Amino acid sequence: MVDIASRVWNHKWKIDPIVRSLIDTDFYKLLMCQTVHARHPTTQVTFSLINRTRDVRLADLIDEGELREQLDHIRTLSLSRGEGTWLRGNTFYGKRQMFTPAFMDWFENVRLPPYHLEKRDGQYELTFEGNWPEVMLWEIPALAVLMELRGRAVLRDMGRFELQVLYARAMTKLWEKVERLRPLEDLRVADFGTRRRHSFLWQDWAVQAMLEGLGPSFTGTSNCLIAKNRDLEAIGTNAHELPMVYAALAETDAELAQAPYEVLSDWHEEHEGNLRIILPDTYGTRGFLSRAPDWLVGWTGIRIDSGDPVEGAETAIAWWQSRGEDPRDKLVIFSDGLDAEKIVELHTRFSGRVRVGFGWGTMLTNDFRGLAPGDALAPFSLVCKAVAAEGRPTVKLSDNPRKAMGPADEIARYKRVFGVGEQVERAVEV
Amino acid sequence: MVDIASRVWNHKWKIDPIVRSLIDTDFYKLLMCQTVHARHPTTQVTFSLINRTRDVRLADLIDEGELREQLDHIRTLSLSRGEGTWLRGNTFYGKRQMFTPAFMDWFENVRLPPYHLEKRDGQYELTFEGNWPEVMLWEIPALAVLMELRGRAVLRDMGRFELQVLYARAMTKLWEKVERLRPLEDLRVADFGTRRRHSFLWQDWAVQAMLEGLGPSFTGTSNCLIAKNRDLEAIGTNAHELPMVYAALAETDAELAQAPYEVLSDWHEEHEGNLRIILPDTYGTRGFLSRAPDWLVGWTGIRIDSGDPVEGAETAIAWWQSRGEDPRDKLVIFSDGLDAEKIVELHTRFSGRVRVGFGWGTMLTNDFRGLAPGDALAPFSLVCKAVAAEGRPTVKLSDNPRKAMGPADEIARYKRVFGVGEQVERAVEV
Repeated sequence: MVDIASRVWNHKWKIDPIVRSLIDTDFYKLLMCQTVHARHPTTQVTFSLINRTRDVRLADLIDEGELREQLDHIRTLSLSRGEGTWLRGNTFYGKRQMFTPAFMDWFENVRLPPYHLEKRDGQYELTFEGNWPEVMLWEIPALAVLMELRGRAVLRDMGRFELQVLYARAMTKLWEKVERLRPLEDLRVADFGTRRRHSFLWQDWAVQAMLEGLGPSFTGTSNCLIAKNRDLEAIGTNAHELPMVYAALAETDAELAQAPYEVLSDWHEEHEGNLRIILPDTYGTRGFLSRAPDWLVGWTGIRIDSGDPVEGAETAIAWWQSRGEDPRDKLVIFSDGLDAEKIVELHTRFSGRVRVGFGWGTMLTNDFRGLAPGDALAPFSLVCKAVAAEGRPTVKLSDNPRKAMGPADEIARYKRVFGVGEQVERAVEV
Repeated sequence: MVDIASRVWNHKWKIDPIVRSLIDTDFYKLLMCQTVHARHPTTQVTFSLINRTRDVRLADLIDEGELREQLDHIRTLSLSRGEGTWLRGNTFYGKRQMFTPAFMDWFENVRLPPYHLEKRDGQYELTFEGNWPEVMLWEIPALAVLMELRGRAVLRDMGRFELQVLYARAMTKLWEKVERLRPLEDLRVADFGTRRRHSFLWQDWAVQAMLEGLGPSFTGTSNCLIAKNRDLEAIGTNAHELPMVYAALAETDAELAQAPYEVLSDWHEEHEGNLRIILPDTYGTRGFLSRAPDWLVGWTGIRIDSGDPVEGAETAIAWWQSRGEDPRDKLVIFSDGLDAEKIVELHTRFSGRVRVGFGWGTMLTNDFRGLAPGDALAPFSLVCKAVAAEGRPTVKLSDNPRKAMGPADEIARYKRVFGVGEQVERAVEV
C-alpha cells in the first residue's frame, strides 16, 4: 500500500536534508565540546576541509548551490527536546549525567556558526571560524554532507533497479564482512563511520546489520543519533583537535612540549575508566610515551590511529611493561584504515595479550568500491581539521607523515621539540 | 513512516496467500483452456503433481495444514471484474478479443475443483480430477504454491538482516545475468518462470528488473497478472497437455499417430501468426516433423522444450529447408533449462539463421542456488501433468527419456506408433 502522506511529505521538501539533527555526530565531539566549552569557551579557531584524495574533484562533482543548501540547513538545526532529554538522562560509559547542566544549557541553545565556501582547483575550500566549542561542531556534519552529496551526484543517473542492485551488492559485501568477523571470540567492534559514511540511512543499516550479525560483539556506535534511535551504546573518547589546539596556543617550546599532556591532564579531571584512552600519535607515539608522566600509565588504554597498527600496539605494550603495568588489563583500540581482514589479523595477534577494541570507520559505512561505473563511489580521504587557533597555525605530525599537517617551518619546529626523526610513509586511503 | 493500516491488515490474514488471482497463471493455460472449453468441455482428466527431484522431500519440509490452507484459498478465487475486463478488452499477440464471449462467460464464473492430497514416502501426492477445462487450471497455481511453501519453510528461521542479504544476493545474481544478456543484439527473451518461481513478489521483481535492464529485448511475461499489472505483453502458446490428452483419447493406433496433428489442426483454426508455434517433442521431434502435413510447414515457428536444444533447432531448420521454407522467416523459441550463459550460446549460434526467442523459466525466477545453508533453496524439478483422460493413462516420450511419463507398456506402444528409437538422456535440473 502506498503511503500517500509520506509521498506528499517528500514532495514538500525543498531539499532532502543530509544532516537532520545536531546529535547526528560523533559522541566524542560532544565529550570534547563539553571540555572545550568549560575551559576554552572563547578560543578562536579555524576549521578547514581538506581532501587528501586530490583526484576526486569535489567541486566538479557537487553543485555549489546544493552544497550551500545542505550547509544552510545544518545552521537551522537546534537540539530537540527529546535529544536534550536523552543527553541529560542517558547513561554513557556507565555514568549518569555525563553532560553537565552547564554544558547542556548551552548546547540546547547553540546554532552552528557561519561557513566560508569557495571553489579552487576543482576542490571546495570550506572553512569555519569562531569560538572553538561552536566551530568544532561543524566537523562531522560538514564531512557527512560532502560525502553524501558526492554519492548522490554519482547515483543521480541510475535506474531504479540498477540502484536497488547497487545497494544489494553493498549489503552483500557488508554482510560478508560480518560473517568474516562472526567467528572471532571476544571481538569488540564499534561503528566509527559517521564522518565518511555513504549516507545516514546506509550507516543506520550497517549498524543494524552489525547488531544482528555480531550480537554482543558489536559494542555500539559513535553516532549519537543512531545510538539514541537504536538504543545502543554511544562510543568515543577524544581526538587530535585537543592537542593540536593546545599546542598551537603554547607560548614557548617548553609549553609546547607539555601541551599534549595538558590535554590529558584536563581529561583526567573529568573522566575515568574506559574514557581514559590515550591518543598518542599527534606528535609521534614513541616520544609521547617515553616522556609521559606516571599518572598516564594508569590510564585504561591507547587508541592507535596512524602508522603501522601492529607496531603501534607493540610499542604500547612494551611501554606498559616498562612502567610495571600488566598489558592484559589494558585496552588497545584500533581505529585507522580498518577492514574485516585487518580486524581479523589484529584481533588474532593481540587478543589475550591486551584487551582489544576496534573503531571501524569508512570500510564499514562506505565500502562501495567496485560498485559504480568508473569506481565513482570509491571512498576517499576527506578530513575537516582545526588549522589555526588564535591566529596561529596548528600542526599535526602523526605516525604517518602523509597525515602530517601545518606550515613547513612549524612542522620542523614541532619535530625538534617532540624529538621526531625519520617516519615511514603509509598510503592514506580513507 | 510505518504504514499502520498495512501492518494491521497483515495481522488480520489467517494465511499469507501465495496465489491471489485466477490470472496469476501462464497465458498459454488460458489459450488452451479456451480451446478445451470449446471442444472438450466434459472430458474427464486427472492431473497429478510429480516431483522429479526425489531427494527434496516436500512432505517433510512443508506442513500439510499450511498446504491445504493455500490450496483451499485458491478454491475461493474467482475472476475479478477488472481481470475479466482486461482479458476481454486487451490486445494479445496483436489481436483484439482473443478470448471469446462464450469462454469469458464461463471463465468469469469458474471455481477450481476439489483436490486430493496424501503424503507418501516423504512426498505429497496431489491430484485433481474432473472436467478438463477446470482441472487444467490447477497446474500452475499448484506448482507455485508448493515452490513458495518450500521456500518459506527454509526462510522461516532466518534473521531480518540475514533475509535482506539473502535477497540482496539473489538480486545481484539476477542483475549479473541481465548485464550478461544486455550486449546481445536483437535478443528477444520473455519470462516463463511462473510455475517454479521463488515467490510471486520475486517473480514480479525479476520481471521489472528485466524490463529496466533489457528494455525492448524483454518481450513480456507468461504471467497474466504481472502482464496486466505491469502493462506488458502476455506470452505463450500451447503445451504438452493437448497432445497428451488427445493421444490418450485415440481409439486406434492410427488415430494415435494422428493425434498430435489433430491438436495443431484445431489450433490452426483458432490462431494465426506468432501463436502458430509447433511444440514437436511430445512423441519425438524427428518423427513428428518428418510426418507433418504440409499446412504445418507454413506455421510461424517451433518451440524447443527438451533434448539438446542445438540439435532440436538444427532439426527444425533442416526440416524447413527440406520443405522449401526459408528458416530466416521462422521463429525458434527455446524454453528448456535456460540460464544466461545458455541463452548467450544459443543466441550467438542461431541469430541470423532463424528468428530466435527465449522463454526463460526457473533460472530467471528462482535462482537461489548457493544462497541458503545446505543449498536448501536450490531449484528442483516439480511438474503437474495430465496423467489420465477418460480413465486412460497419458504418455509423454519427449526428446529426453528422463522427461518421459506413462505406464511402461503404453510407452512401448507409443514408441512403436511414433517410430521413436534410442534417445539420449539429459539431466533434468529444473
